[in-house]
Amino acid sequence: MIIDGKGLAETIKQELKDEVDEIRKQGGNIPHLAAVLVGDNPASASYVRNKVKFCEGAGFESTLIKKDVSISEEELLEIIEDLNGNEDIDGFIVQLPLPDHINEHRVTMAIDPSKDVDGFHPVNFGKMAQGLDSFLPATPYGIMTMLDRYNIETEGKHCVVVGRSNIVGTPMSILLSRKSKPGNCTVTLTHSRTKDIASECLRADILIAAIGIPKFISSDMVKEGAVIIDVGINRVEDASRKSGYRLVGDVDYDAVVEKASFITPVPKGVGPMTVTALMMNTLKAAKSK
Amino acid sequence: MIIDGKGLAETIKQELKDEVDEIRKQGGNIPHLAAVLVGDNPASASYVRNKVKFCEGAGFESTLIKKDVSISEEELLEIIEDLNGNEDIDGFIVQLPLPDHINEHRVTMAIDPSKDVDGFHPVNFGKMAQGLDSFLPATPYGIMTMLDRYNIETEGKHCVVVGRSNIVGTPMSILLSRKSKPGNCTVTLTHSRTKDIASECLRADILIAAIGIPKFISSDMVKEGAVIIDVGINRVEDASRKSGYRLVGDVDYDAVVEKASFITPVPKGVGPMTVTALMMNTLKAAKSK
Repeated sequence: MIIDGKGLAETIKQELKDEVDEIRKQGGNIPHLAAVLVGDNPASASYVRNKVKFCEGAGFESTLIKKDVSISEEELLEIIEDLNGNEDIDGFIVQLPLPDHINEHRVTMAIDPSKDVDGFHPVNFGKMAQGLDSFLPATPYGIMTMLDRYNIETEGKHCVVVGRSNIVGTPMSILLSRKSKPGNCTVTLTHSRTKDIASECLRADILIAAIGIPKFISSDMVKEGAVIIDVGINRVEDASRKSGYRLVGDVDYDAVVEKASFITPVPKGVGPMTVTALMMNTLKAAKSK
Repeated sequence: MIIDGKGLAETIKQELKDEVDEIRKQGGNIPHLAAVLVGDNPASASYVRNKVKFCEGAGFESTLIKKDVSISEEELLEIIEDLNGNEDIDGFIVQLPLPDHINEHRVTMAIDPSKDVDGFHPVNFGKMAQGLDSFLPATPYGIMTMLDRYNIETEGKHCVVVGRSNIVGTPMSILLSRKSKPGNCTVTLTHSRTKDIASECLRADILIAAIGIPKFISSDMVKEGAVIIDVGINRVEDASRKSGYRLVGDVDYDAVVEKASFITPVPKGVGPMTVTALMMNTLKAAKSK
């Protein structure tokens, strides 16, 4: 079965809109997300546009703060301080990557954890790892929501995560091993230093590919009936496209699709769920006021 | 080879003492650890005694704050506020467990992260999980130190962690999978919902047993040549002892010792290293002032 991330994202957007309409009717606090975009990286601009568009669709308020690539770290930190103190903003994100002259860690640490809807601040990350209530990082939260809405059984399953990044692989491995639903998986976290990654993948009931290498997961690395979650969004050249490229995942989709019990496509799989999760966090922030 | 946790702890205690002697000579800041003990749980009292004794041996200053089991949460939080603000205290711990009428989470959250030498505050836990500098939780830090000092190769090894507690299993799985030395393991985290825990353990080059069940790891769960780290400290009745009990680990030591390339005994294995790690954190706190 193909997991329709785009369709699910639309469904949840409508649910969020219904909830926000109700809040509006009762004169409550309408969720308001701010996004800070520095420079003109086209991928970053496109991600931020998607987020703003989703806000509109769900009835959220949104504010886009666009700054030139030449902004100093100090100026950016001042903007963050303003957003932290702005009662009208429930949550905000600073789109990564930032220009080289700005320290991303310092920026992340400056965000008030109660407005950190990306879930990147260490205090939110730590609470997640300790099983406490927190803002979950958007991509892992989107995947957990997907598993939940598709009623995919996770308890007692063997999950193999490929890639140990702070934004996907590591938090996914933590979330799926927790005592929760979805969760309660036996989780193996693999990465570039893993000796025989194919053998590890072959053991997976649930395989999370988040390594950033196009079509890394081949058919012979996948067990019959496995659930395949493809987090990769890789641009590969394609002269037949007007843009000159197309998006492919970390999984060799065409070869794997027959073996998988569930699989996410790229695009329209995990990507739209990441934005959805960000909005769920923003609503949570607005309601906790 | 039997890993001599007690001996290594003594060696490091001497190294710490040498460093503190040097600090004293130069008129620097002598590390000062405070421990808060609530009630009269004999195990807790014994742990705290060991910590104070280690402080003395390493030339640290120590303060023991003993409170009756009837102390209110508010009173305890006031003590923590005082310790947070006390310039003379570099780090402090509140010995767990606390009486039922006190919310442990609230207590942990009240500790200033820069004095949280137990590494339990979410911001320290999150930094650890994100690979940032932080106070590592004492038991995992002690084990990492052991692996390091015994020059046990971890890169590319398959590590199986049994038990997903916040104080041992989960942080161990995170630390060993990080890009670090020791680290770079392929890590499988197993727990009560794991379907075939014996098969998982059999795959381990490095096995971390932290499940709290006496002799849970039997010989047929261990691969020839594996490194065995036994975190269990279980009291089992023993009429032949004056105390009426003896301590056994989570590993069936006598059956496993022949197969293991390295193994920690119980007692005198991981236990003394936990106290050592706490002291390393305290020195780090003192030096960062």
